[in-house]
Amino acid sequence: MRSTMGWQADGSATLRRVSLERRDLRPDDIAVRVDYCGVCHSDLHAVSAHPGDTSVPLVPGHEFTGLVTEVGPEVTRFGVGDPVAVGNIVDSCGVCAMCRADQENFCHEFPTLTYGGTDRRDGSTTLGGYSREYVVRDHFAYPLPAGLDPAAAAPLLCAGVTVWEPLHTIGVGPGARVAVAGLGGLGHLAVKLAVALGADTTVISRSADKIDDARRLGAHGLIDSTDPGQMAAARDRFDVVIDTISAPHDLGPYLRLVAMDGTLSHLGHLGPVTVQTTDLLVGRKRLSSAGSGGRPATAAMLAFCAERGITADIELLPSARVNEALSRLQRNDVRYRFVLDMSDLS
Amino acid sequence: MRSTMGWQADGSATLRRVSLERRDLRPDDIAVRVDYCGVCHSDLHAVSAHPGDTSVPLVPGHEFTGLVTEVGPEVTRFGVGDPVAVGNIVDSCGVCAMCRADQENFCHEFPTLTYGGTDRRDGSTTLGGYSREYVVRDHFAYPLPAGLDPAAAAPLLCAGVTVWEPLHTIGVGPGARVAVAGLGGLGHLAVKLAVALGADTTVISRSADKIDDARRLGAHGLIDSTDPGQMAAARDRFDVVIDTISAPHDLGPYLRLVAMDGTLSHLGHLGPVTVQTTDLLVGRKRLSSAGSGGRPATAAMLAFCAERGITADIELLPSARVNEALSRLQRNDVRYRFVLDMSDLS
Repeated sequence: MRSTMGWQADGSATLRRVSLERRDLRPDDIAVRVDYCGVCHSDLHAVSAHPGDTSVPLVPGHEFTGLVTEVGPEVTRFGVGDPVAVGNIVDSCGVCAMCRADQENFCHEFPTLTYGGTDRRDGSTTLGGYSREYVVRDHFAYPLPAGLDPAAAAPLLCAGVTVWEPLHTIGVGPGARVAVAGLGGLGHLAVKLAVALGADTTVISRSADKIDDARRLGAHGLIDSTDPGQMAAARDRFDVVIDTISAPHDLGPYLRLVAMDGTLSHLGHLGPVTVQTTDLLVGRKRLSSAGSGGRPATAAMLAFCAERGITADIELLPSARVNEALSRLQRNDVRYRFVLDMSDLS
Repeated sequence: MRSTMGWQADGSATLRRVSLERRDLRPDDIAVRVDYCGVCHSDLHAVSAHPGDTSVPLVPGHEFTGLVTEVGPEVTRFGVGDPVAVGNIVDSCGVCAMCRADQENFCHEFPTLTYGGTDRRDGSTTLGGYSREYVVRDHFAYPLPAGLDPAAAAPLLCAGVTVWEPLHTIGVGPGARVAVAGLGGLGHLAVKLAVALGADTTVISRSADKIDDARRLGAHGLIDSTDPGQMAAARDRFDVVIDTISAPHDLGPYLRLVAMDGTLSHLGHLGPVTVQTTDLLVGRKRLSSAGSGGRPATAAMLAFCAERGITADIELLPSARVNEALSRLQRNDVRYRFVLDMSDLS
């Protein structure tokens, strides 16, 4: 086994610096020196939900970039020193209909998650990117395109592909009317990507003071979701509403903004959602969801971002301040994504 | 005012034969001698929900056929003696975005329903087609195509267009894999229409003994929804699942039958529905709904049915047996739609 340092939940809501083991490289593995790891809302959920029992270790982190430090003998896609990026999936069965359709994120045997997953070969629990080293099957690592800042690019690997998937699947392009509900980690990347795809993009937020940020990101305006008049005036206006709000909420007001035959893509919150049939029925609206993406979609998103110079707006912190980052994220006190600098773990 | 006979809720769950008034014809009205009126599940809901207070009269019925007996001076589309059909909408604002898009069923001012609606001109409560005469704006009546049996065609005006809308909107055509969940009034027409559109059609039912009916209607087979093995084997198999089940139910098992990027169209039951985000997310599935259709869609559906010889499978009863029909419908004891013969009201 290999040894590295990382940040592990200690059974309370805080993370502690610990020594971790990584597996010895398999023939198709690469070792990655993790330089930057984004702090995702699901990390917060995982830490909050982690039970007092620490027998199953929790090391969060599933959007990171770094450099390849070692490669297994069968690896052909990477060499030592290559910049690399890893997202929230590190393995899948490879043979089910979804894997064959390049949608490893929907693998029928469930994809192996980057942390809290179960390794398909040795049954161990995966430990995430809040650490200085990660060992990953080369198939699930991506070359980081030149020109993308490796710290600001880290959030593309989860937040980025999560919003890319619906925009791409729905076919958002020039002239599409897109609204992005919630301007946070997911939302600000949804705005940047929608704008770059040529969409007429609007932000919907309960924070009207984000109007300047919305414009800076390329949006044409902001609808204050707490103002019934503004919401009513926007009825049936958008071909697509990308709902990135991370707390449970009523989808009705957002469905009513969708134009006939349009789509509400509900991304920000996993769990049960209740909709009134009539909110779907009237205007033939569609409800969909998305989360992560398959390998080709992830690579396509990275290529698009490199071409357009798109990265996340980040606040970079030394990894030792991870608990501060989680606590501020809980209060939505970040514009728009924390990224941890892992060099303090060396 | 004009006088006719009809069947009115008496404040309990039964209907009584009463004398009704119809308005004198406006310039754009036609008078229809109602010959046949289908018994829709929503009639059952309306009668069950009707309060003891009978000050607001309830006469159900919103899918009927008959003959034109009189026309207002501005009417050009109909002449006396023309066979005609009326569905569940009898007026709309005509100027909102939805009306302009030929989707009067989504009128922003809410369409005037055939019964229980509020007349846009005099504010009266509309009384439905369980009666011998109906007076309707010519704009919302449809010529009944020659060759369609007027009794068996009556259910096309509500059940037919309700299932036509999603099939048409989603673009179901040759080779599409369609499942129809629930084989009742809506479901059996969904099967007939999907088969006529060229789809590879399967019925999903908890009544495995409907397999012969399913085949007779043109379906290739039936999946027993109570058999977990059959449901699991059909995972991700259908491009479209038309869910016509009239009782509240868990959508999860039906979403899991939808193929990647496919749609579950939830038609049979109005009200809140709860879905697990992951049931949408995994496979990028879409949830939609439908109900009724606009005027052009209704006319197109009638033309398609005339061309293909499609009508409902009905059990025709004298209108005096309306309470028996409602009670048997409540028990799903009909294959597949009751139609009332109104000639006993003359």
